[in-house]
Amino acid sequence: MGAKKKLVCWLQWVTACTLVLLVGFIIGWFARPVDKPDGEKRDFLQEFLAEIHAGNIKEHLRKFTRLPHLAGTVQNLRLAEQIQEEWLKFGLDSAELVWYDVLLSYPNTTRPNFISVVDQHGDEVIKSSLAEPVPEGYENVSDIVPPYNAFSAQGQPEGELVYVNYGRTEDFLRLQREMGINCTGKIVIARYGKIFRGNKVKNAMLAGAKGIVLYSDPADYCADQVKPYPEGWNLPGGGAQRGNVLNLNGAGDPLTPGYPAKEYTFRLSLEKGVGLPKIPVHPIGYSDAFHLLKNMGGASSPPDWKGALNVSYRIGPGFIDDFAQNKVRMNVHSYNQVTRIYNVIGRIRGAQEPDRYVILGGHRDAWVFGGIDPVSGAAATHETVRAAGRLLQKGWRPRRTLIFASWDAEEFGLLGSTEWAEENAKMLQQRAVAYINADSAIEGMYTLRIDCTPSLHTLVYDITKQVMSPEEGEEGMTLYDSWHKRDNWTDVRDAPRISKLGSGSDFEAYFIRLGITSGRARYTKNRKTERYSSYPVYHSVYETFELVERFYDPTFRRMEVVTRVRGGVAFRLADAPVLPLDCNEYALALSQYAHAIHRLAQKHPQEMERYAVTFDALFSAVDNFTQAAQEFHRRLNKLDTTNSLSVRMVNDQLMYLERAFIDPLGLPGRPFYRHVVFAPSSHNKYAGESFPGIYDALFDIENAGEPETAWSEVKRQISIAAFTVDAAADTLHPVA
Amino acid sequence: MGAKKKLVCWLQWVTACTLVLLVGFIIGWFARPVDKPDGEKRDFLQEFLAEIHAGNIKEHLRKFTRLPHLAGTVQNLRLAEQIQEEWLKFGLDSAELVWYDVLLSYPNTTRPNFISVVDQHGDEVIKSSLAEPVPEGYENVSDIVPPYNAFSAQGQPEGELVYVNYGRTEDFLRLQREMGINCTGKIVIARYGKIFRGNKVKNAMLAGAKGIVLYSDPADYCADQVKPYPEGWNLPGGGAQRGNVLNLNGAGDPLTPGYPAKEYTFRLSLEKGVGLPKIPVHPIGYSDAFHLLKNMGGASSPPDWKGALNVSYRIGPGFIDDFAQNKVRMNVHSYNQVTRIYNVIGRIRGAQEPDRYVILGGHRDAWVFGGIDPVSGAAATHETVRAAGRLLQKGWRPRRTLIFASWDAEEFGLLGSTEWAEENAKMLQQRAVAYINADSAIEGMYTLRIDCTPSLHTLVYDITKQVMSPEEGEEGMTLYDSWHKRDNWTDVRDAPRISKLGSGSDFEAYFIRLGITSGRARYTKNRKTERYSSYPVYHSVYETFELVERFYDPTFRRMEVVTRVRGGVAFRLADAPVLPLDCNEYALALSQYAHAIHRLAQKHPQEMERYAVTFDALFSAVDNFTQAAQEFHRRLNKLDTTNSLSVRMVNDQLMYLERAFIDPLGLPGRPFYRHVVFAPSSHNKYAGESFPGIYDALFDIENAGEPETAWSEVKRQISIAAFTVDAAADTLHPVA
Repeated sequence: MGAKKKLVCWLQWVTACTLVLLVGFIIGWFARPVDKPDGEKRDFLQEFLAEIHAGNIKEHLRKFTRLPHLAGTVQNLRLAEQIQEEWLKFGLDSAELVWYDVLLSYPNTTRPNFISVVDQHGDEVIKSSLAEPVPEGYENVSDIVPPYNAFSAQGQPEGELVYVNYGRTEDFLRLQREMGINCTGKIVIARYGKIFRGNKVKNAMLAGAKGIVLYSDPADYCADQVKPYPEGWNLPGGGAQRGNVLNLNGAGDPLTPGYPAKEYTFRLSLEKGVGLPKIPVHPIGYSDAFHLLKNMGGASSPPDWKGALNVSYRIGPGFIDDFAQNKVRMNVHSYNQVTRIYNVIGRIRGAQEPDRYVILGGHRDAWVFGGIDPVSGAAATHETVRAAGRLLQKGWRPRRTLIFASWDAEEFGLLGSTEWAEENAKMLQQRAVAYINADSAIEGMYTLRIDCTPSLHTLVYDITKQVMSPEEGEEGMTLYDSWHKRDNWTDVRDAPRISKLGSGSDFEAYFIRLGITSGRARYTKNRKTERYSSYPVYHSVYETFELVERFYDPTFRRMEVVTRVRGGVAFRLADAPVLPLDCNEYALALSQYAHAIHRLAQKHPQEMERYAVTFDALFSAVDNFTQAAQEFHRRLNKLDTTNSLSVRMVNDQLMYLERAFIDPLGLPGRPFYRHVVFAPSSHNKYAGESFPGIYDALFDIENAGEPETAWSEVKRQISIAAFTVDAAADTLHPVA
Repeated sequence: MGAKKKLVCWLQWVTACTLVLLVGFIIGWFARPVDKPDGEKRDFLQEFLAEIHAGNIKEHLRKFTRLPHLAGTVQNLRLAEQIQEEWLKFGLDSAELVWYDVLLSYPNTTRPNFISVVDQHGDEVIKSSLAEPVPEGYENVSDIVPPYNAFSAQGQPEGELVYVNYGRTEDFLRLQREMGINCTGKIVIARYGKIFRGNKVKNAMLAGAKGIVLYSDPADYCADQVKPYPEGWNLPGGGAQRGNVLNLNGAGDPLTPGYPAKEYTFRLSLEKGVGLPKIPVHPIGYSDAFHLLKNMGGASSPPDWKGALNVSYRIGPGFIDDFAQNKVRMNVHSYNQVTRIYNVIGRIRGAQEPDRYVILGGHRDAWVFGGIDPVSGAAATHETVRAAGRLLQKGWRPRRTLIFASWDAEEFGLLGSTEWAEENAKMLQQRAVAYINADSAIEGMYTLRIDCTPSLHTLVYDITKQVMSPEEGEEGMTLYDSWHKRDNWTDVRDAPRISKLGSGSDFEAYFIRLGITSGRARYTKNRKTERYSSYPVYHSVYETFELVERFYDPTFRRMEVVTRVRGGVAFRLADAPVLPLDCNEYALALSQYAHAIHRLAQKHPQEMERYAVTFDALFSAVDNFTQAAQEFHRRLNKLDTTNSLSVRMVNDQLMYLERAFIDPLGLPGRPFYRHVVFAPSSHNKYAGESFPGIYDALFDIENAGEPETAWSEVKRQISIAAFTVDAAADTLHPVA
């Protein structure tokens, strides 16, 4: 062999060996099992969204609205069992019924509730209706509960009537200070709207009233140019709004505050129960209200107190002229009763992090048929479960555990969801990533409405860009663009408006008590042009399948997009390797809130100087938070996502960010409202306030409070807010 | 080439290729980075324990006891700076001073506090000493604070003296019911011991006393056959016990309950401050007490009320015969002042899980020299930090983050540790694995004393088997065996006794408020033969370096083993891949506690029947917990420890187990005592009770309470305990 040939041969050998070595290396490299970088996983989101169908939602809605499903009734237990069975059939890993024995309230079937006017002989000259006219097609349905206010005290008080507008704190103050009307011993009549009805009742009690009548004024429950149901979607004169009148402030079952209402649980006596009103309350429709209001005496209302009935809205007390001897009598015989309720809890076990929970929950119980509230939401959830089951069959399994909940007794004070939160509080605090609420999917026909915590903003925008608009004439337009066009968040940014979470639905215990990242989505009315409260037939017998099918969503595509948004958000939270939460959005929101509450305080520049009130600590804390959030996301961008422990650590920081805003001591006098940034004010359960502790203290200053004490409380609340925001910022710093 | 040769050649090729491929494969396999199975890591525990030296501890103790280090003084700030500097020199990743502005209390330097007896002319015929005789060698030390009770009210009340034994609830009840003595308007004198002094003051206030004198009786502060210091370690007649008399119940700084005392923090007014006594309190030694007690009139004490002074221990009120006109006058001029305190916080960043914290913390502030309390503990911690620093140099780094803390103002109500816990509560709740307390390392000369949560039992036993006995004549014997021999836990098992955690040291906020796994270790006296309270010279000027060197630990080997036990436990908690916590031990303890509290209730069989009180729910919850713990450990044994996410998940369950016993609503009237299983009873801050809510309710029944209300509270507390244990069991179930 020549030297050259030998060399060539050697080179061949070396090359061959190198190649073989390389092949071996590559095989070895890839043969070794490691935590799979999650980027490689197939993204099922589009398949998931596509699996959600309007037609199915329609069928779920139809099926679930045939009968009334009042909490605590056999029908609602049967529905729970049906849902449990179908969820299992859809392919959930588990679905169980979880019961609690909670205090509910029902009308007495043999002694109906009503309002009457009695003359000087004690004869009832006027009586309010005992029930709403039943809509066509439902005449043979039994067990339609007549309009009542759950948890009203029993009684038959008689007295002069006083008109108190919406029954807000400011309304009663105006009555007392400007009009010189003392409500002590009177029966007051308030129109529904603006604030939670329970607050109206509390205000009436504080004013000394011995009873309160609630009615729906056409000004608040009829849209222009719309006919009453069934010709249109307005409230008919005979319709009335049911609803509980508790002041629970997040306590759940009134007899077991803080603890789940199980068989071994200690129960308070009815006298000590949380939030139970001490006076009778009863709701009526505007036909009945007309007969009470038309003869009222006393001064005329201020213009902004006048509703749309053809009466002069005099304040009272009592009636005019010939009717001056007449009194109003309330007849309320409803009773409270500890009753068993049932949640349905379904689960898909997470593949990589089974100990991280994403919850999609909404209620199942309805006042009557629940065409909108809640079944439009429950049907959406049902379709979401079906779609998730289909994906499981295709080989998908979420990274984290998905929990689906069908809550009971929401209408009686968020009882089912709160009791479950109480029973599982320790686990939820440690493991819950997010709670997506699934109450009514629709309350209007105009555009999307999102209420959520700031860290969800970016994810919501992202999902709505992957869903198409349901509106006719907007083919090819994304939901994001449609929503943006219809409701631009002009004062904050050029993007669709997102609102704060208030209360009044089942996210409350999860968000405001436990500090779990939360959000809700629904289709809504045009906030600029439609001024009525919620939707006209809210909580009446007219919430039927036909109401939705004829007026709110004939193609069911609006409910379809709401289902996709809720489902898509939950899907991403359950499946994304790094949690899609945005701390910078939280920082931005905190800054806006701090400025807003500061502006509110600055209405009193002299007092702020006299009592040395400064917001510096709060602004400084917000700056710290802003910087911490920016640095957190900078680090996040450089994260080695193949290191499963590192990913878990930043996810823990993201998951626990919302928890950091919880003050274990709670808001003043409201131990179960513990979120320092978001809670309803003491004066309106439905409205979410930012920095509610500071807000309430300022509200007191505006309305009644002794200045030195009240301003001292403002300072205390600023200090707590500043501490909490600072501590939340700390949780975003590098972990050690 | 022949066919055979060709074949051989081919075989050579194939073999070579296979070998090369294999080599490549192996290189590839090992080249690929994966989470290292932790079993492969070198175990540094033995090196760590061996690095801890008696001689160093001695030098630390000598150095840290030269001067008084009262909280809020310059000397204590200087010591903080020295410790910070040395910790950094030892090699910690960081060491910082963290300040708070808290309420402290000092004697007025120009108007000394004392107790006098005044005759009918108002002349002071007897006056208590203004200071303790200073021990030899310390004559030139300035800034020795005279004996006083921090946070006493100011005042000079005058009145008849009543002897109230230990000042316990039961003592005052006996005075009132059996002896017919009304303490209203009286000055009471109570001996130190049995319960926390702050509870004595609270009880005196409740009984209507206008002042309380606390004294150390030789029966409680002198051991038999032992001479007073400096000849022995007994309390001299001129010595007196300093100490705060707050009733904080875990609130920390009295003016900022629930929040850290920073510059922006809202402060309560002094009138609204938490736990501040409203009457003057002053401590005296037994020489002074003799002069007050010897002339007392009234009935003779019951035998168990008599101390060891040569007086007859009459109850009063007032003095006998010639002295009947004399009154006792208290002169207390101490003042409260918001003062800056400093914690030193040192850190070693965890290598794998930096977001998991193991804390070793103890206080630095002392009443005077702090020879035992706290410097025997601070010296131990200092040596632990030094040893950890040495290991870092050898290449060790713990899996989790280690935090070392030198707390300030423990003597004023656990203020430094509580404020830090308040400031970092959110992070600690999420990330703290364990808190090991490092107060006094020694309070006796007999054997080891461990107070810890049940899940630490097994780890403590394990570590004590790896440490050798410090006792002469026990060469070659493990600490475990020495301890076992000296203090067998006979009624529970054949193993060394471990006690419950009470309160009275800095673990309180971590354990009882936040629910962090906690424990403490010290060397103690023989509990069977030595009946005196704590140790005789406790909180006196006689707690010097020489006290320890001459009497308590001449070889410093007792302190060495305590340092090793504390350090070893912290080391394992910080370094073990799977947390060495034992849920089965918790189950066992819960079962014992449930039976014990049930036995206590069963002293009232008729009432239990009348009020339908049952412990069934609690026993059932304990059964659930026991089963869940067993199943948890069965699964743990089969855990794939190479899967870092799986390990993290079970570690989270272990870490959060203690957290599960926290009730966010707190114990009745004590919002910062939130541990349902362990807290001091309302009647003795030092003693840990199991199921303190139930215990306190039963205590009320024994002592005063209206039966129906009291038994209702027992039932409520049983229900809460059952719920909590059940919920804790849930956290041990499979995670989804």
